[in-house]
Amino acid sequence: MQRIEAANKQALERILGADPILIDVIPASEAIPTLTENRILHAGPPLNWDQMCGPMRGAVCGIAVFEGWARSLDEAANFSAEGAFEFLPNHHFDAVGPMTGLTTIGQPVMVVENQTMGNRAYCAINEGLGKVMRFGGNDHEVLARLRWLRDEFGPAFGRALRHLGGLPLKNLVARGLTMGDEMHQRNVACTGLTLRALAPAFAETVRDRGELSKALAFIGNNDQFFLNIAMAMGKSIMDPVRNIEAASIVTAMSRNGTDFGIRVSGTGDSWFTAPVEMPEGLYFPGFTEADANPDMGDSTIVETVGLGGFAMGAAPAVAGFVGAGEPSSAVDFTRKMSDITVGENPEWSIPGLNYLGVPTGIDIRLVVETGIVPTINTGIAHKEPGIGQVGAGVVNAPMHCFEKALIAFAEGVGIT
Amino acid sequence: MQRIEAANKQALERILGADPILIDVIPASEAIPTLTENRILHAGPPLNWDQMCGPMRGAVCGIAVFEGWARSLDEAANFSAEGAFEFLPNHHFDAVGPMTGLTTIGQPVMVVENQTMGNRAYCAINEGLGKVMRFGGNDHEVLARLRWLRDEFGPAFGRALRHLGGLPLKNLVARGLTMGDEMHQRNVACTGLTLRALAPAFAETVRDRGELSKALAFIGNNDQFFLNIAMAMGKSIMDPVRNIEAASIVTAMSRNGTDFGIRVSGTGDSWFTAPVEMPEGLYFPGFTEADANPDMGDSTIVETVGLGGFAMGAAPAVAGFVGAGEPSSAVDFTRKMSDITVGENPEWSIPGLNYLGVPTGIDIRLVVETGIVPTINTGIAHKEPGIGQVGAGVVNAPMHCFEKALIAFAEGVGIT
Repeated sequence: MQRIEAANKQALERILGADPILIDVIPASEAIPTLTENRILHAGPPLNWDQMCGPMRGAVCGIAVFEGWARSLDEAANFSAEGAFEFLPNHHFDAVGPMTGLTTIGQPVMVVENQTMGNRAYCAINEGLGKVMRFGGNDHEVLARLRWLRDEFGPAFGRALRHLGGLPLKNLVARGLTMGDEMHQRNVACTGLTLRALAPAFAETVRDRGELSKALAFIGNNDQFFLNIAMAMGKSIMDPVRNIEAASIVTAMSRNGTDFGIRVSGTGDSWFTAPVEMPEGLYFPGFTEADANPDMGDSTIVETVGLGGFAMGAAPAVAGFVGAGEPSSAVDFTRKMSDITVGENPEWSIPGLNYLGVPTGIDIRLVVETGIVPTINTGIAHKEPGIGQVGAGVVNAPMHCFEKALIAFAEGVGIT
Repeated sequence: MQRIEAANKQALERILGADPILIDVIPASEAIPTLTENRILHAGPPLNWDQMCGPMRGAVCGIAVFEGWARSLDEAANFSAEGAFEFLPNHHFDAVGPMTGLTTIGQPVMVVENQTMGNRAYCAINEGLGKVMRFGGNDHEVLARLRWLRDEFGPAFGRALRHLGGLPLKNLVARGLTMGDEMHQRNVACTGLTLRALAPAFAETVRDRGELSKALAFIGNNDQFFLNIAMAMGKSIMDPVRNIEAASIVTAMSRNGTDFGIRVSGTGDSWFTAPVEMPEGLYFPGFTEADANPDMGDSTIVETVGLGGFAMGAAPAVAGFVGAGEPSSAVDFTRKMSDITVGENPEWSIPGLNYLGVPTGIDIRLVVETGIVPTINTGIAHKEPGIGQVGAGVVNAPMHCFEKALIAFAEGVGIT
């Protein structure tokens, strides 16, 4: 149908025309005025306390203590069960979060502005590897780090960004693709490029030498520091693609540890969900599939803009890390994703594929027609809260989400 | 001959067993006690003033003014013609330098220690792009930067390295190979990895905030900052491979802008030279082949350890930069170099080639037998001093060097 093609063309133009800039770090309360006391934003489509997996519950209890809404983890669990907190998706508040992905009033969030469209998107700062809240961690160490992010690092990061006048992300990501990143499970190059752009500004705006050294080391020692920036970037690119009438392009893919949900441009803000699948991947020493939690997080927003599993061809080293076969076959994933997307991004290209642009704009019609679902590179969380990441792998978006979306989409555009 | 195979095996073991650490930055006078007043070390095999190309003469005049041995460039040229300075190769003093590669008493040099063998190698700090002495630049701006390197940046860099306890290079280079660097014409990843390792130490050891910011920006804004570190590393790895009786492995390849020279383990410190070739490559806007100087610099030491043109397969993006054909064919260069080397380096491997180790240990017998000469990725200097880099390309080591070396080698081992 010509109407759908025209709408998808417009959707692709908005994706390719986006100009995302990391401009600031501010308290979530300031970024999102509707984020009030006792509201807890989480990754994925809507879910309530009863439906939550272990790590999600662990993170909820931790953040309630962090915010001062409960005196202990047990009290927080009781409050949660009693309905004291309102659980809402990040995606409903211009925000995204990795894994459990909790966003609450007292956390600092990074601000990415899509300067083409004028909208902003938010994501909390990546806490690092190991025992962290995004994997359900909630002990003293985890909460102490969150306080440091809130009180020291976040404000310093914001000052450095304002001093620099913002960090343009489009070219930085383009460069990262020539350096083996796919911006989901491999962000080492983009993290380095971010540090080198920001280090002089940090030096000029942080007075205390120890604090400065700690801040620079915090960025430099976390290969995944850039992931949360890439996510806010993805959200800022895709939000203006929402609600284009008759467009069959996916605007969000997301998981809450229980369900996988997608949103489609032409069907507005409805979620189409299905039970989330288990990632297939490689486990860190000492862990097995039996330890794994089902797939989780808003990080799949990067696949909706052509990165992550879609850009696997740029990152042969990640193929080994996520257990996706021989590194030299990483390009096959990228080529396969071309079958379910409406275009390529000429500004985000892959040298090893002779500068083929990353496949961009997932069309739900093509997914259902070809039977090919989006490939997602993901971290694997332990199913018990507080243990952390136990592996990395590849997971498929469930076909059922796309089938449900296509039925609703067809009804919306008047095809029966 | 079994004797040669055994000697080459030993040579390869020394290369693969090396453990290079960047440990310090100190004045050249301290690093190299025999580097006295009026001695000027240059890239490549020996040459005198009359034989020098334009950029080499330009650099010589500049460094003489920098060192206070002449009051003006003209006076420096007169002094040079009169024999006031002693011109000697870096390679004779445990040192290397890129392009013109001058090393003199007053410059700071980076110190790489090969902790397996206990030897040290030295290289000056990379000045950045554009108008710089390594491309023959010698005006006020160039000399002012050299003074800043000597008086501020060099000492600060040394303090940071000592504070850190040294920067191990073997794993850093391994990581860079997974991030698209080949460490000759592409060092953006390794430069970033260096910065992230050193930034906290800089923060803790530089008192002045402006000086700190300038130092961090100087590293971060120069994608080739790591080149000189890679060169000192290469020299520290290859020097212990010199003088193994009956070994036919190349220990150095180097160019002085006039001649290309190689040294071979079994023939000691003799140079085998031939006129240097012109690089074939891509020129920056506004420049053509007519502007190009013949090939120059000690940087080819990185190819002797399996990097640069030998590791092209790790760096598809560099293939376009140096005009070496389609990025996807970058792997062909690496495979071809396997035909003239005695082994692979399992610790320096290429993800896109399913972790094939870089081809290591150039055997002059294989070069002559196959007719395949080493491929070198190189920067192209303007033939007039002071203009700078005008392009990048690929250049062949001249076959005649290897033929001459093989004749001498055969005589040395008693084959007639």
